[in-house]
Amino acid sequence: MSTSQSKTVIDHRICFVGDSFVQGTGDPLCLGWAGRVAQDAVARGVNLTHYNLGIRRDTSRDIAARWQQECAVRLPADCEALVVFSFGVNDTSIFKGVQRVSEEESLTNFQNILSTSSSSYKVLVIGPPPMPDSAHNRRVAQLDKQFTELAATLNVPYLSVFEVLRKDEHWLKEAIANDFAHPGRRGYERLAGLMQDWSEWCFSTTNG
Amino acid sequence: MSTSQSKTVIDHRICFVGDSFVQGTGDPLCLGWAGRVAQDAVARGVNLTHYNLGIRRDTSRDIAARWQQECAVRLPADCEALVVFSFGVNDTSIFKGVQRVSEEESLTNFQNILSTSSSSYKVLVIGPPPMPDSAHNRRVAQLDKQFTELAATLNVPYLSVFEVLRKDEHWLKEAIANDFAHPGRRGYERLAGLMQDWSEWCFSTTNG
Repeated sequence: MSTSQSKTVIDHRICFVGDSFVQGTGDPLCLGWAGRVAQDAVARGVNLTHYNLGIRRDTSRDIAARWQQECAVRLPADCEALVVFSFGVNDTSIFKGVQRVSEEESLTNFQNILSTSSSSYKVLVIGPPPMPDSAHNRRVAQLDKQFTELAATLNVPYLSVFEVLRKDEHWLKEAIANDFAHPGRRGYERLAGLMQDWSEWCFSTTNG
Repeated sequence: MSTSQSKTVIDHRICFVGDSFVQGTGDPLCLGWAGRVAQDAVARGVNLTHYNLGIRRDTSRDIAARWQQECAVRLPADCEALVVFSFGVNDTSIFKGVQRVSEEESLTNFQNILSTSSSSYKVLVIGPPPMPDSAHNRRVAQLDKQFTELAATLNVPYLSVFEVLRKDEHWLKEAIANDFAHPGRRGYERLAGLMQDWSEWCFSTTNG
């Protein structure tokens, strides 16, 4: 469809692909940041269908194995398609004494997922959020930095949220009160707000 | 996990698999009935993760092709898993002069999906809702009747919602005002309410 048509006519469909933070685990409203940014766009008159494809415990390896098939059945050729990825926290977690996905493999998965997806769809990436665990956070921060650089070389818009959320007054507090990983209502609201303020987000509030 | 544990400890995970009505198309809150029943259970202290696997335009044939893989990656062996299916309206729609899926194939798909899924998971089915089109509705009503009988022989709990929603004061009015198919906030609230009042729904308000 032509972009000259009214935004209420364009058939926008978005797949949010990622981990538990995408799924919205711990959110009492069962929306997460993905549901909140969708709700906000719809409230502003956008004709939007959103598919939440966040899965708990998913690493970049798990996402590499499924994103293509799951998006293909949800994004028909005649829609205005967008895929938003977000992962990394689970890659850097330690399970039975071993990091679940090595940094090297995480970067390979990131490169493969983003180069393939961006050849078929408009794509955005939201970086991994912080955890209430300083050792884990050093690994997340390092991966976020590497993802940022790699996204730039791939020419894929990347929003790093780690540092802002680490300093956020609610994110880590809610995570500790919750399950030592996932925030609650205020944390998800904050992350949704970061996305809504991002000029690369098609329905950014800063784009008018 | 033992059912004697507190409901806040049991790790409930639900896949809602179906069509646009499952996805919640047209709902300004981007929750649909699936998001509403999840939100309600969470508000009552249930530790619940919900995955919305509704896809617009999906028929029973499309769902038969994908449900197994999509649920398998979302429902680990150690969770209390539930799969809720809902489809049928798209099977009975006419596309380019032909019914998209014949009644015979719909019933075969229903039987295959339900017999396979109920051997691995606890399963519930919500019947197809009405459309603001009397010819289409005759086919939906007929399919709903056949699904009801087949579900009984398969021993799978089935909630028929067609007749109640056809007489609902909001469902068809909202569908007409919207896109001649999907309701808005009140219609989805009503369908969520029907599910919440259903004794087979694990978090039914009638079960206390």
